[in-house]
Amino acid sequence: MSIDTQDVRRYLLGLQDGIIDALQAEDGHAFVRDAWRKAPGERLQGDGISRLVEEGGVLERGGCNFSHVQGPTLPPSATQHRPELAGAPFEAMGVSLVMHPRNPYVPTAHMNVRMFAALPPGREPVVWFGGGMDLTPYYGFEEDAVHFHRVCRDALAPFGDALYPRFKRWCDEYFFLKHRGEPRGVGGVFFDDFAELGFERSFAMTRAVGDAFVDAYLPIVRRRRAAPYGERERDFQAYRRGRYVEFNLVWDRGTLFGLQSGGRTESILMSMPPVVKWRYDWKPEPGTPEARLYSDFLRPRDWAEAAAGDAARDGA
Amino acid sequence: MSIDTQDVRRYLLGLQDGIIDALQAEDGHAFVRDAWRKAPGERLQGDGISRLVEEGGVLERGGCNFSHVQGPTLPPSATQHRPELAGAPFEAMGVSLVMHPRNPYVPTAHMNVRMFAALPPGREPVVWFGGGMDLTPYYGFEEDAVHFHRVCRDALAPFGDALYPRFKRWCDEYFFLKHRGEPRGVGGVFFDDFAELGFERSFAMTRAVGDAFVDAYLPIVRRRRAAPYGERERDFQAYRRGRYVEFNLVWDRGTLFGLQSGGRTESILMSMPPVVKWRYDWKPEPGTPEARLYSDFLRPRDWAEAAAGDAARDGA
Repeated sequence: MSIDTQDVRRYLLGLQDGIIDALQAEDGHAFVRDAWRKAPGERLQGDGISRLVEEGGVLERGGCNFSHVQGPTLPPSATQHRPELAGAPFEAMGVSLVMHPRNPYVPTAHMNVRMFAALPPGREPVVWFGGGMDLTPYYGFEEDAVHFHRVCRDALAPFGDALYPRFKRWCDEYFFLKHRGEPRGVGGVFFDDFAELGFERSFAMTRAVGDAFVDAYLPIVRRRRAAPYGERERDFQAYRRGRYVEFNLVWDRGTLFGLQSGGRTESILMSMPPVVKWRYDWKPEPGTPEARLYSDFLRPRDWAEAAAGDAARDGA
Repeated sequence: MSIDTQDVRRYLLGLQDGIIDALQAEDGHAFVRDAWRKAPGERLQGDGISRLVEEGGVLERGGCNFSHVQGPTLPPSATQHRPELAGAPFEAMGVSLVMHPRNPYVPTAHMNVRMFAALPPGREPVVWFGGGMDLTPYYGFEEDAVHFHRVCRDALAPFGDALYPRFKRWCDEYFFLKHRGEPRGVGGVFFDDFAELGFERSFAMTRAVGDAFVDAYLPIVRRRRAAPYGERERDFQAYRRGRYVEFNLVWDRGTLFGLQSGGRTESILMSMPPVVKWRYDWKPEPGTPEARLYSDFLRPRDWAEAAAGDAARDGA
């Protein structure tokens, strides 16, 4: 291809290393490193590095994957909004992570940054970026949601004040379980098909999102990791993780793209939680902390704008 | 609509009752009965009866649902093979069940029979049937797979010898996890878009499949329900149940149709197992019973034709 994407690859590999260093230091367990390369002759070509931990000190299961693939035809999940590129050869690279802590008071976190290049024959390549991060608590704390959103807002600020509210709303719309009428968590930021600032500046904005993840998440992990919990909290966490599975397998474009295009299944499905439960038509008792997740956190709110008092009130 | 579908409804309600009676007698716990009706003004109209048990004597979670819905536009998952009907108003009714036993030596079973009517404005209604049943063991027994397939074969025999091999192959192709290159289980029979025998005889064939379920599954439950097991078997069962979740949420047309069309989520997701585990790139040790599931059972075989000797050899 005529555009040079080596800078993007270099950045992504460095991002993965930096995140893994920070998470390993926090967790206390080393992440496994699993480098892979697609066999010659497979439909999808490319390579990747999966880094993951299971039964860690903090993380019950978590992974941060780099992948860089080339394919002969863009699958439908990638061209929903760009029908003129349907079926074109493509190149895609990204870093994607999901962290499932053991302690139900520590929220699950997801972050992804990615670059797509469609290479329609005889035409200029079309390059765009996508990504974001979002937070999924089991027991909500306003302080955590406010912190997470403010880090997102501040990371995007150098690229214009309009981006955070726009990407925040996009995140609320994207991470929404339509079949339950329920948000996945307290959101964060999400963007896709993004090239409007030109390649260099769109790439810089994408870097700002990736680079902000550790600051957005680790302080929350530190604050909650030692919170005492019992079977009740673990049970609710396992039940709520079912929603995470439902979202990722039914609605998530990235997951469907990966599975449809012949991506590496075990790396893609690192997003699945370690232990999950389903139970028929279960609802929390009114007035419980579990009910408070639904009433106070699983609805779109302007977290970054919350008054300091709101943020201080939490922690109960 | 001009065709009378009341006979189909009556049959399906009776089928559900008969299956629940048989399963309750085997399980020893009463199934909950949850009748529902879509609220006026919702996009999808209709009613249904969910019957289910959780923490039963044999079944850790299991449900058998009747539903009968009318919608303004067929969703894409229903018209993949009938593009000329895309977006037409429709009526759909069916009985669908999934049983997740607690004992890992008892296989999970699924059965579904359904009728679809597309009602394109100003044209004749187009009616078709679909359904089938399939078996998903955690620890395989040839005797069980042979029995299940022979009951399916015998049920279809009155409608021509060609149907069983055709529906058996269709089942192998349908219940296949493309992202893992792996069958869901030992198969059974599957058919869809079926109207080639005319309404009456296609309906009779569909009834034959539904009516065969209890004979196909209960003898297997009886044979295995008291088998001793420990944490190792429960753990493998929970891991393999992850495949069931992946298939149903990523590939199953019925599930996607239900979730896309605004069906009743809690009834549709009765197919989800009660406790599921994911683990990175896990493979059984060669030579173990767990490895034998992959090598001997998760590959298409002519179970109904297996020699008696093969069937007797199992049970180890």
